[in-house]
Amino acid sequence: MKLHVNIPGASYPITIERGCLNHLATSIPYEKSTILVHDSGIPLQWVNMACDQLHPKAVFCFEQGEGSKNLHTLEQLLSAMFEAGLNRKSQVVALGGGVTGDMAGFAAACYMRGIDFYNIPTTVLSQVDSSVGGKTAVDLGCAKNIIGAFWQPKAVIIDPDVLSTLDDRQVSAGLAEALKMGLLFDESLVEAFEQDSPDLVSIIARSIDLKRGVVEQDEKEAGLRKALNFGHTIGHAIEGSFEDYEYLHGECVAAGMLYFITDPTLKKRVRRIYDTLHLPEIRDFDKAKVCRLLRGDKKGNENGISCVFVDKPGSFVFKTMAAEELDAMVERDPYEEYNR
Amino acid sequence: MKLHVNIPGASYPITIERGCLNHLATSIPYEKSTILVHDSGIPLQWVNMACDQLHPKAVFCFEQGEGSKNLHTLEQLLSAMFEAGLNRKSQVVALGGGVTGDMAGFAAACYMRGIDFYNIPTTVLSQVDSSVGGKTAVDLGCAKNIIGAFWQPKAVIIDPDVLSTLDDRQVSAGLAEALKMGLLFDESLVEAFEQDSPDLVSIIARSIDLKRGVVEQDEKEAGLRKALNFGHTIGHAIEGSFEDYEYLHGECVAAGMLYFITDPTLKKRVRRIYDTLHLPEIRDFDKAKVCRLLRGDKKGNENGISCVFVDKPGSFVFKTMAAEELDAMVERDPYEEYNR
Repeated sequence: MKLHVNIPGASYPITIERGCLNHLATSIPYEKSTILVHDSGIPLQWVNMACDQLHPKAVFCFEQGEGSKNLHTLEQLLSAMFEAGLNRKSQVVALGGGVTGDMAGFAAACYMRGIDFYNIPTTVLSQVDSSVGGKTAVDLGCAKNIIGAFWQPKAVIIDPDVLSTLDDRQVSAGLAEALKMGLLFDESLVEAFEQDSPDLVSIIARSIDLKRGVVEQDEKEAGLRKALNFGHTIGHAIEGSFEDYEYLHGECVAAGMLYFITDPTLKKRVRRIYDTLHLPEIRDFDKAKVCRLLRGDKKGNENGISCVFVDKPGSFVFKTMAAEELDAMVERDPYEEYNR
Repeated sequence: MKLHVNIPGASYPITIERGCLNHLATSIPYEKSTILVHDSGIPLQWVNMACDQLHPKAVFCFEQGEGSKNLHTLEQLLSAMFEAGLNRKSQVVALGGGVTGDMAGFAAACYMRGIDFYNIPTTVLSQVDSSVGGKTAVDLGCAKNIIGAFWQPKAVIIDPDVLSTLDDRQVSAGLAEALKMGLLFDESLVEAFEQDSPDLVSIIARSIDLKRGVVEQDEKEAGLRKALNFGHTIGHAIEGSFEDYEYLHGECVAAGMLYFITDPTLKKRVRRIYDTLHLPEIRDFDKAKVCRLLRGDKKGNENGISCVFVDKPGSFVFKTMAAEELDAMVERDPYEEYNR
């Protein structure tokens, strides 16, 4: 299956196909000078498969985890690119999850003021969401994605077969983002989660297609795209509040969405899906730190922070919340209204 | 005098006027949250004058010199922005020379994926050239401007009166870039340097206007704008080869241009202008290091490095040079063909 993201001056294909990691040459010009970027957590079989086809000039491996997504690792990556002799005609290929794609994409965006970038997402989270849209970034201390650029990839290559080596927790956390897409834009995607055995490949394809549509309408997040922050306002802050990133991004987003679903029936329905996915209940965060992080949120301005609320699957509303209102929300238990 | 840079989606005014630093409110929306960026070398009178009008939420001062233009200082600057609570609606104002503008501009480009940037250049070099065009960057080790973005300012405010506190060496080094503009595009600007008492303000205005025209035609350096690299290919490498940046950027560019003027008569003429400006002869650089840096040059690809040659003032040719040819050029004394 092939989708096309149509953005003026930066259109690109998304390939979604079992086994397509075996056919990279159809998407990536392997004759160009390439650096392959991955983290220490990805099974070597996928790295070797990519290397055998792309013959990269350099391979950059960094320690797995959000803790690596900072200017220090970025500098090491940029130095590796320079040492390998990459120039303006060279390219960066990311093989991995959101952290890999975000950081490798930002390296591509700012190396010599911008070179080509290819993204091969290997986690559910990145396959259903972050690999498409051109948001690249690294963190600044515990403030997530504060440093970055909009830099569209030249192609996104999604092979659902690589998910076979993921553990269940990673899969579930990623599916929380796909559920988010359903809650915002398409109830049938929510219903897909309520099947006896949900079809992973069609959930991925539907989710990334919804993302594609949003990005086409609003590349730079002037309006509609802000809806994708549903669950992220408090979720990001919760994630950043743990020194060692105990919880996965998707797990924090799942917790974060509950604050912004005010209809008890829908909340119950969503919580039931969380249970099916075995998503953890996150209560053990430092509330004061979360409030502090919220005040530095990118979505904020002098009047407050723009938040996204969903009460009916497939639709949403924006509401600007004062920092004090958010503080009060954080004080509440997001799981409180749910009786199993 | 007001010029307008017309780039699709990013047009902005350039104000060139004696005393205009006293009237910043006409160019910069002072009611927005602002960080003012300057270095330790700028006279406090200019910083205070800007602060009195802009009331910045934060002022970031870094140690003067190219040695500060790296990811480490950038991280400090971005942290200061975050600590001050700047958000997507905030703005960065640079007050200083090329290093300040390049680094503050890049901070604006990548903070929350891009916020507004205003540039108040206070050196000849930045007033005649670097403040207009949207090239922002920091260095990576001794490789200059390897990390950066194209990020156009919202306005450029040029007050020639601030040059009164510059020392003569800074003024001369800056004028080398204006001379470069004349050599490339306009012989009358070269002739302006041959007057008994050259008119600084009109040299600045003519030079920045030529730059404006180039940037309008080729914002992202796909073609014409590459001509501005005249003198920079070897000049940048010479500058980066000194651990402590003994020579100013403009001085290195002046030396660098001589390698690419093959007509002895023109070279003689240019050398005579250098003498009037008291530009130093730079011979004491590490040639092996310069050659090494050239191989990592942004203008390079597998076939060689694109170089700009001038033999008649007001015109130029591009020529792709193999790394070995450039090595041979570096071995020669650029001052050799000149007999005073």
